[in-house]
Amino acid sequence: MPIESAIKKISLIIGNRLKTSQAIRKEHSKSEAHYPEYLPDAVAFVNSTNEISKILKICNDELCPIVAWGTGTGLEGHALAVSGGITLNMMNMDKILKVNSEDMDVVVQPGVKREQLNDYLRQSGLFFSVDPGANASLGGMAATRASGTTSVRYGTMKENVMALEFVTADGRIIRSGSRARKSSSGYDLTKLLVGSEGTLGIITELTLKLHGRPEAMSSAVCAFPTIDAAVQTVIATIQTGVPIARMEFIDTKTADILNYYSKSSLDSLPHLFMEFHGSETSVVEQAEQVKQIASDFQASGFEWSHKEEQRNKIWKMRHNVLYAYKSYYSNCTLIATDVCVPISKLAQIVNETQRDIEKSGISGPIIGHVGDGNFHSTLMIRDKNSKDVEVANELAHRMNERALKMGGTVSGEHGVGIGKIKYMEKEHGEAWNLMSSIKKNLDPNCILNPGKLIKQH
Amino acid sequence: MPIESAIKKISLIIGNRLKTSQAIRKEHSKSEAHYPEYLPDAVAFVNSTNEISKILKICNDELCPIVAWGTGTGLEGHALAVSGGITLNMMNMDKILKVNSEDMDVVVQPGVKREQLNDYLRQSGLFFSVDPGANASLGGMAATRASGTTSVRYGTMKENVMALEFVTADGRIIRSGSRARKSSSGYDLTKLLVGSEGTLGIITELTLKLHGRPEAMSSAVCAFPTIDAAVQTVIATIQTGVPIARMEFIDTKTADILNYYSKSSLDSLPHLFMEFHGSETSVVEQAEQVKQIASDFQASGFEWSHKEEQRNKIWKMRHNVLYAYKSYYSNCTLIATDVCVPISKLAQIVNETQRDIEKSGISGPIIGHVGDGNFHSTLMIRDKNSKDVEVANELAHRMNERALKMGGTVSGEHGVGIGKIKYMEKEHGEAWNLMSSIKKNLDPNCILNPGKLIKQH
Repeated sequence: MPIESAIKKISLIIGNRLKTSQAIRKEHSKSEAHYPEYLPDAVAFVNSTNEISKILKICNDELCPIVAWGTGTGLEGHALAVSGGITLNMMNMDKILKVNSEDMDVVVQPGVKREQLNDYLRQSGLFFSVDPGANASLGGMAATRASGTTSVRYGTMKENVMALEFVTADGRIIRSGSRARKSSSGYDLTKLLVGSEGTLGIITELTLKLHGRPEAMSSAVCAFPTIDAAVQTVIATIQTGVPIARMEFIDTKTADILNYYSKSSLDSLPHLFMEFHGSETSVVEQAEQVKQIASDFQASGFEWSHKEEQRNKIWKMRHNVLYAYKSYYSNCTLIATDVCVPISKLAQIVNETQRDIEKSGISGPIIGHVGDGNFHSTLMIRDKNSKDVEVANELAHRMNERALKMGGTVSGEHGVGIGKIKYMEKEHGEAWNLMSSIKKNLDPNCILNPGKLIKQH
Repeated sequence: MPIESAIKKISLIIGNRLKTSQAIRKEHSKSEAHYPEYLPDAVAFVNSTNEISKILKICNDELCPIVAWGTGTGLEGHALAVSGGITLNMMNMDKILKVNSEDMDVVVQPGVKREQLNDYLRQSGLFFSVDPGANASLGGMAATRASGTTSVRYGTMKENVMALEFVTADGRIIRSGSRARKSSSGYDLTKLLVGSEGTLGIITELTLKLHGRPEAMSSAVCAFPTIDAAVQTVIATIQTGVPIARMEFIDTKTADILNYYSKSSLDSLPHLFMEFHGSETSVVEQAEQVKQIASDFQASGFEWSHKEEQRNKIWKMRHNVLYAYKSYYSNCTLIATDVCVPISKLAQIVNETQRDIEKSGISGPIIGHVGDGNFHSTLMIRDKNSKDVEVANELAHRMNERALKMGGTVSGEHGVGIGKIKYMEKEHGEAWNLMSSIKKNLDPNCILNPGKLIKQH
């Protein structure tokens, strides 16, 4: 058996850091999302690029599937061993290798988590901006092209990964990109790897852009009579050139649930949560500008503050949305959806989706990184109600179809994994064949995370 | 002969828009740079994606080399038909197809020039930011991953191309990306094509990001006692988080030449030219902040203004640098170099390069997009002095080597073409093999711009 043979050979390299116990395999069989369990045959706790290179050579020779594992917090089942084989646990590779303060970049191993990096940087005046919901590993965030609440200002992983070291299916160690801020020298392999979900190579080192902590920050909250009014405010704010740092939408249902969970007193209406970064003068000015724009769209209760306490309160509330949902719908399993459209279509798709959910009989509050045109509905599957899963899948399906029809994408930030692969052909057409061709070229034996993202060959 | 056979078949498709006259071939044999002439066998003036698709199928069947041609302003010989064959003149495809104001994007054909686009957008409150020296075609700018003076704030072509239509070597028409501001759905083929210099496909349509015209702009100029002081000011400005829109360095020699050419009265010292975008208050504040920083580094004569007249004067002077050089060194041919390093290394590399040039006996004033760590020296080859070419090549070579040694890249924005291909292996190592493998996969007959960027196969 190829997998058994691979396991035997790998254990000669990393000894008892190759685990085959049921308990460890089970820990690596399920992510936070609502997908079935897939047990890998073994889990390799790797310590170095060289080890990974050797392991990949073995897997390539033995035709043994292999997938990297970070924090297991992916929402589309990216890291599940759907064909069995080896799961590479990357979390021992958790060193912050070099902070280059003058150049505002940092070199890290893939197992460093985003909060760990920002804790480390706290005294430096610099920060790393990308903040998905989970405290994910930076390797996983790069592999899935993650983003979060600050992308409207600072970009996604695509804009923040400057260089990579990765290992190809045949064990070659590749360095792509550099610490130079720009380059027109050769194909951008770094951007090809970011978002490739472990299907083209295993990321073993990342050079990331850092940003200067702003001199001042202010935050604001306001309510709107309709979703349209909120989205029009977003469009006008961005067109006016306000360099807004965060612009988060929550629907009426989410406002109600936050009031229940966080003891807040939000009106039972759609809201925007905002943050402004800049100089002391500039953050005041930005808040005033947006206040004016919002009032043109009948906003109510516009409150802004540059008090850290108030700001923390708002963002704690926003970051707690998932916990609030879990508490409020305590008898439910959650399915998180994720699409992104051109911002001019955002009000339409949120409205249509909301109406669709209302008709369905299940709950699905909506939140969004609206500055990017990205939003999520969280669909609530009641325990022991098998029909809910079907209904939720249908709702999610129609939401994806809607996004594609409006010129958008089926995944703004959660990735493809096994959840969205069925939409790849429809979204990309012939381009998906091209992706598959590149995959086949770089991984002819299809050992790297098989079953994800690309057409099977 | 494969090329003759291809010409015959192509003429059946586009009739007399396929030109084989010596005059037309000669027009497409030489770019603005100092490379030998390479005559294509024929020039195809194409009108549509479908025509390009048919022509590529023919070339692929007949093994006939093919290269796209925009304005012919590339500086590394990208568009030269070094193996003969067909040159595709793209300049008939010059339509601005759709401005999406709310989404701040635009869909264009590849033959649209950057100034044409901005003229068209003048009344819209939006602008396209990337501004290389030449009034280049947008297709060419994407293919070469161009940038310019505003990249420090608005990014290069990499950050500003959202989606592409392109045709592969076998004539398939591919659409990559979408108008959604972000996506984690699949490999980023758009970013793979941007900077691929026509070696992976011919770009036939582009969706570009636009930016809102700032409410206010201000500009500033100041002199520094040393290059170090100027660069330290740049680093501190960026670290402070001033969202500077332009930050251009000129050396003492260039200041002298500008005084001669533009009748300006710059001190005979290194200078920074800067521009600030934002609200009325913010541009004043930014200028004052940078003034303070500059004064910490012994800047003299800091002058800023938010008068349009003053701003235009500064940027006209900056944009005229090449003409000023040509006028001042009227008996010389110019060779433009281009490297980019992490910004912390910029002062060192500029100093070392300047000393190297001084010792060489030829002139080579230095300017740079210093906010990005990118700079150029323009080496002056005296007519009828064959030794100068050799000396200049040696100087450029040492500059490239220096950039690589400092963790930078041999091309910040001019691309690879035929000029920098010799450095690909040294800069990228095994990654260059990977690029070549992708090329071979997508263009097995190597018909697309052979001889450029990748390893020959």
